[in-house]
Amino acid sequence: MAQLRDTHRRIVLASRPQGAPVETNFRLEVQHPPQPAEGEILLRTVWLSLDPYMRGRMSDAPSYVPPIAIDAVMGASTIARVEKSRHAGFKEGEWVVSQNGWQDFALSDGRSLQRLPDAACKHPSWALSLLGMTGFTAYMGLLDIGQPQAGETVVVAAATGAVGSVVGQIARLKGCHVIGIAGGAEKCHFAEQTLGFDRCLDHRDPALAEQLRRYCPDGIDVYFENVGGKVFDAVLPLMNPRGRIPLCGLIADYNAITPSTLPDRLPSLQGALLRKRLRVQGFIINQDYPHRFDEFIHQMAQWVTEKRIIMREDIYDGLDNAPKIFIDMLEGRNFGKVVVRVAPDQP
Amino acid sequence: MAQLRDTHRRIVLASRPQGAPVETNFRLEVQHPPQPAEGEILLRTVWLSLDPYMRGRMSDAPSYVPPIAIDAVMGASTIARVEKSRHAGFKEGEWVVSQNGWQDFALSDGRSLQRLPDAACKHPSWALSLLGMTGFTAYMGLLDIGQPQAGETVVVAAATGAVGSVVGQIARLKGCHVIGIAGGAEKCHFAEQTLGFDRCLDHRDPALAEQLRRYCPDGIDVYFENVGGKVFDAVLPLMNPRGRIPLCGLIADYNAITPSTLPDRLPSLQGALLRKRLRVQGFIINQDYPHRFDEFIHQMAQWVTEKRIIMREDIYDGLDNAPKIFIDMLEGRNFGKVVVRVAPDQP
Repeated sequence: MAQLRDTHRRIVLASRPQGAPVETNFRLEVQHPPQPAEGEILLRTVWLSLDPYMRGRMSDAPSYVPPIAIDAVMGASTIARVEKSRHAGFKEGEWVVSQNGWQDFALSDGRSLQRLPDAACKHPSWALSLLGMTGFTAYMGLLDIGQPQAGETVVVAAATGAVGSVVGQIARLKGCHVIGIAGGAEKCHFAEQTLGFDRCLDHRDPALAEQLRRYCPDGIDVYFENVGGKVFDAVLPLMNPRGRIPLCGLIADYNAITPSTLPDRLPSLQGALLRKRLRVQGFIINQDYPHRFDEFIHQMAQWVTEKRIIMREDIYDGLDNAPKIFIDMLEGRNFGKVVVRVAPDQP
Repeated sequence: MAQLRDTHRRIVLASRPQGAPVETNFRLEVQHPPQPAEGEILLRTVWLSLDPYMRGRMSDAPSYVPPIAIDAVMGASTIARVEKSRHAGFKEGEWVVSQNGWQDFALSDGRSLQRLPDAACKHPSWALSLLGMTGFTAYMGLLDIGQPQAGETVVVAAATGAVGSVVGQIARLKGCHVIGIAGGAEKCHFAEQTLGFDRCLDHRDPALAEQLRRYCPDGIDVYFENVGGKVFDAVLPLMNPRGRIPLCGLIADYNAITPSTLPDRLPSLQGALLRKRLRVQGFIINQDYPHRFDEFIHQMAQWVTEKRIIMREDIYDGLDNAPKIFIDMLEGRNFGKVVVRVAPDQP
């Protein structure tokens, strides 16, 4: 649905999901666009990022991000254009990285906005992935926590996802043997043929554990955990002594409504951690690594320019469709980084 | 039982325990002492160290130490005197730290022996605890993995044990708020009054979780895990963001014969690791930190000399009693570092 210039759509949280979100958990509201006061700017959302962590914010259970209030706009990172400016630091037509959320317009006093990285000027939506939060997550989690050494084996779940695809490509650049895990033959083929993974395994294969053993003949040194669930069970027995497990997401558990019915796996995890002297470390990129963003963006821009790292985007049109796109993404029906085009690139 | 000069007692593993070890898992054998060949020395065991990790070596399940073979001598660190020397590097009467195991005599070619640290010359058995493996474990696990900062809260399980008591004392020296957990009022009193812990809680108290919450009003920054089991469940909800959990032992699980009957705690652990950005790291002192032993022994010798760190030893007499002492130790009936006097200090 094309956006009308004087229409301001907002998608708010109507109710908290029980298990997987459904469309009735969201509500579309249409208002007039807000008007900037002196010192403010009006931002128009052009690109909206949809990411799994948002599922956590829809619940009021303890999470690493505060819950969204009922009737409040769904939060999200966005690429926006300055539509009107009454702020000396911003001109109309400029691009920024902002936190507009799932809506057409947002007001800002200029704080907490970032300039679009130079490397993203031809491709603004990359500032939501490769040159933004998900690329940064991949970079710091793999390099700072995972500490991969050339010749080591790195396993990455959600291998074609926004984070996993970058983890695997960086690990290849560092000379590692890289095994991805993804859902379905098409994604696995893409990971091997286009992203350059040494091998990508289908997590739907009942023989996943055996396959993993076969393709990790020297064990696993780094497991980049952004999925949770049964992949972890297949990986753990293959971890090498002094292995590292950066942990940045647990999408498989986000929709869990009933507790795991498996036997208690805590003692075996603790036993493996001790026996193999493993390190498991959770991290949240914006809280743990803001001081290293410049280093990241400098290195990643170079890799992107040299086409040594690529990003497959899964691009959708229309803010109205965001709830359905988001629901599908949590089920793994996306293929690449999910972004929604809310308004045309050109005004 | 006094040792006869020409009697060589050996305690061998007779059978693998199912659950908690029993005395029939061990067998005492009496032989003539072995005789050193050219280039060898005959060592007489004076002090025998009994430690929880030995339980793992009695099983043939995967562990971080290789299993002891049936009919082989039980392994152990020992303080020994050179009884006969046909080796240019050792003189009769010298003290060494060795791996004689549960027996009166052992032959050695001199490799893998260590000199008794100077700081232990007046108190040789300390080279099995404060100035040996358990002190080293406490030192590196707390300082290198735990990274405690002044003012932070450190929780230590098995607070009066060989490792835990040193962890707590070092944490106090570093200016931390230190809460111990131990079994019974007597041990808790000792931890508070003699070791200087700020508070010590009884893990048998059904209100342990509430007590812990009460005495850790600012949450927990470092949990030194050497126990496993229910203490971990009480600690996890109180861990602060970016908390650290060094993991060096799981004594509570060593005798587990049946799997945990609790619901699956893995998802909640993973969730907490992510949400709180925790680091959990297993380590095995002799494999991970041999290059830092000199630093450790230098610092610890100074603390010991200044009486800033003390060690309560639980001293038993007689090699014959080792099986029963070991069984009791696994049940927590010891109070301090368990050492067995196998022969008199003076020849």
